[in-house]
Amino acid sequence: MSFSGVADSELALLSLESAAELLRKTQISPVELMDAVLARVQRLNPHLNAFITVARESAQARAKLAEKEITTGNYRGPLHGIPVALKDNIVTEGIRTTAGSKFFSASEDSPEATLSKRLRRAGAIVIGKTNLHEFAYGVTTNNPHFGPTRNPWSLGCIPGGSSGGSAAALAAGMAFAAVGTDTGGSIRIPSALCGVIGLKPTYGRVSCFGVVPVARTLDHAGPMARTVADAAIMLKAIAGYDPLDPATVCKSVPDYRAALQGEIKGVTLASPREYFFDHIDPEVREVVQHALHNLEDMGATIEEIRLLDFAETITPSTHIAFAEATQYHQSAGFFPSRADDYGCDVRERLAAGMEVKATDYLRALEIRSAFSKRLDTLFEKIQAILVPAAPIPAPRIGEDTIVIDGVEETVRSALIRMNRPANLTGHPAISVPCGFTRAGLPVGLQMIGPRWDEGGLLRVAHAYEQATEWHNCSPPEITDPGP
Amino acid sequence: MSFSGVADSELALLSLESAAELLRKTQISPVELMDAVLARVQRLNPHLNAFITVARESAQARAKLAEKEITTGNYRGPLHGIPVALKDNIVTEGIRTTAGSKFFSASEDSPEATLSKRLRRAGAIVIGKTNLHEFAYGVTTNNPHFGPTRNPWSLGCIPGGSSGGSAAALAAGMAFAAVGTDTGGSIRIPSALCGVIGLKPTYGRVSCFGVVPVARTLDHAGPMARTVADAAIMLKAIAGYDPLDPATVCKSVPDYRAALQGEIKGVTLASPREYFFDHIDPEVREVVQHALHNLEDMGATIEEIRLLDFAETITPSTHIAFAEATQYHQSAGFFPSRADDYGCDVRERLAAGMEVKATDYLRALEIRSAFSKRLDTLFEKIQAILVPAAPIPAPRIGEDTIVIDGVEETVRSALIRMNRPANLTGHPAISVPCGFTRAGLPVGLQMIGPRWDEGGLLRVAHAYEQATEWHNCSPPEITDPGP
Repeated sequence: MSFSGVADSELALLSLESAAELLRKTQISPVELMDAVLARVQRLNPHLNAFITVARESAQARAKLAEKEITTGNYRGPLHGIPVALKDNIVTEGIRTTAGSKFFSASEDSPEATLSKRLRRAGAIVIGKTNLHEFAYGVTTNNPHFGPTRNPWSLGCIPGGSSGGSAAALAAGMAFAAVGTDTGGSIRIPSALCGVIGLKPTYGRVSCFGVVPVARTLDHAGPMARTVADAAIMLKAIAGYDPLDPATVCKSVPDYRAALQGEIKGVTLASPREYFFDHIDPEVREVVQHALHNLEDMGATIEEIRLLDFAETITPSTHIAFAEATQYHQSAGFFPSRADDYGCDVRERLAAGMEVKATDYLRALEIRSAFSKRLDTLFEKIQAILVPAAPIPAPRIGEDTIVIDGVEETVRSALIRMNRPANLTGHPAISVPCGFTRAGLPVGLQMIGPRWDEGGLLRVAHAYEQATEWHNCSPPEITDPGP
Repeated sequence: MSFSGVADSELALLSLESAAELLRKTQISPVELMDAVLARVQRLNPHLNAFITVARESAQARAKLAEKEITTGNYRGPLHGIPVALKDNIVTEGIRTTAGSKFFSASEDSPEATLSKRLRRAGAIVIGKTNLHEFAYGVTTNNPHFGPTRNPWSLGCIPGGSSGGSAAALAAGMAFAAVGTDTGGSIRIPSALCGVIGLKPTYGRVSCFGVVPVARTLDHAGPMARTVADAAIMLKAIAGYDPLDPATVCKSVPDYRAALQGEIKGVTLASPREYFFDHIDPEVREVVQHALHNLEDMGATIEEIRLLDFAETITPSTHIAFAEATQYHQSAGFFPSRADDYGCDVRERLAAGMEVKATDYLRALEIRSAFSKRLDTLFEKIQAILVPAAPIPAPRIGEDTIVIDGVEETVRSALIRMNRPANLTGHPAISVPCGFTRAGLPVGLQMIGPRWDEGGLLRVAHAYEQATEWHNCSPPEITDPGP
């Protein structure tokens, strides 16, 4: 059986798992698969600007090598021969890394990111490096140097950020899986706004060695994919202790894919009522509440909880993020010496970071510690806290503020506030597609889980996904002639 | 054999170990020993002001209990029945804790410090709480609320600080051992200036639970004594993992006393030349250099090393100390609300702490990490780094600045600069008496050792002590009529 006659789209929009199955059975070759995805990238990326760099030649060469390996019986596993996209703040071997910046570039001898190395060893092939908010320090992916990434569901809208390119690439079928980074929602926000799966693992679960930092104690790298099972396969490949990243710990990494099966019946979830009613777009509210009803119909118990201090973590989180980000850029010799080379918004935030007092930073660490303990205690009784991944659907490109219930808020604040608490405490959190607004923009349901229990989160997410149809939706094909 | 006829001084100035031996053999009773020490406290403390609180009644009651235990065959070990002094920032059961402050007091239900509990279980008896620099945040022990502690070797001079009361009490025979705390030299400085042994253990070796913090990541508690063997006995009693102090770790605590024997011959030590020649009082220089010659005569190899970045750690150390100290006082609700209740110098430093930028604090943590690794590497080849414990002998009370080689420096800066590097990195460091200036003021030699190897440091210090006579020197008896 040959797939050479099949349209690119059909191949490229398969789940990673289905594509892997075809590769394993040698029903298609890695070369065919890569060509199909590259053809799609060539056609769609000019519209979406999801990639900063497409590594066409190295990807094709590696696909040939994978073909040889697989046909000679050296099949490595479900990522072997699979085209994946890496956010362009992850240092890769042989492909430039820009961090979405005008001047940053990982030098020739910069060591490869551990997660890139692990994916390579698993046989995955990096098809390209995805666009991001400059230095991953923002949520729009409206990059001043490489242009905005566009949301595949509505080209006038942002994909969210900072891992906007990864999310757009996935939604548009330009990669089977991707890796993003998340300091204040940067995996979950674009996943929600583009209708894909995004998992921010437990702090320390995935090595950030070789990832350009935003704020070290809040930074996470994690998988993005079109299905929960695909995210599980990716997480297994990139997770685990890394002596090069002191935040990682010696903990065994379960086979997340194998652990997906399981009843949702009897599982206790918690929803902080104020996160579903206050300061949330009415259409998004309707969609996420419907998702909660679905989960209840499936047999889950949903407890209403009060989580007022969730909101109280925003200021300390900001102190930590601003101070750590500016300190990195100072230490690297970038800021303020090259202040003019930054986009306005990032420059402003870096300047604001210089004003944070050390005492406020230390107070923030105290609040972090207390809030972390509070969540840990909560998770002794529940499997996940449910909150929207974002209180709004994708805003339009260039929009700085939005109005919710008559209150004006910056896009940045609105997109971050549901997400940063899990960065502060390090608990794992996943965004799962749960429906659409009437304008056809995706909405994401966020589930925050117990520390180190990504498996539990993935299991609930998988059950929900299998019981709903959202992951089978693809954005409309782009038909206009393009730029 | 009864000691009832012996002068207080003879009993009170015994080493802890010798007194313990007499107690164990029931040649004296804990009650006699306590009475001898209390008599001395009554006579000398009005001159020295070493104690803020003398716990006469509880000490006598506990001595009676110890007598009963020992005579009924329930001897607990070398601290049983031994009068010890605790710095008054260590929360004790049944004895008030002032932290040397006008308004601080551990409330009735404040939990006892772990180290106090451990000493109590070992049978030691707290004879009183010693004077300190206000909130342990300074080096003179010129306390604005409880008056200055005076140096037993010269009543017009400071004992150093912040554990000045503990050092003065020991030197004057008002306790057999003491506990101090050290955030920037606060154990080693007064030990050097008063001619006693002071050991700042590895960060995390001794629990700081129940110790009023100065700067949490620099704070250490440790033993002070008249002999190295006595310090070893005290360290064994107070060291070890404490679930209540997250800085402590599960590591076995060796029998430091038993491990003191050992050749110094063949041991490699290192002396950073610039610390013996630059910005150091000429008489102190002469004394510490003589100590180095002694060590060489004993068979140690002393390598000259360059340790220029030692000095470069002062600014980052200050950023950390200032920020953490102010944040504690803010969080506790003390500062700035009760600013007027602080002494001038501490108030000024707390105010300065509010100005430290978070980025400078974070940069300081980076420098700490790099310098710590550098020292760890150095210690792969050497047993200890030798530096003076202080570049000057005890200044006069009230003196704010001193002149060394024509350069004016604050007393605070001079006393701290040789000490804070080991607080920054957490390496253990001991001050050992090594001679006197011509005016009869003690000089201390500081030895900094490999992480967790207090045993190695104590062994070298013990060998040096046994080969010299300094620990047999006592300050002149006070004969003036007193205040």
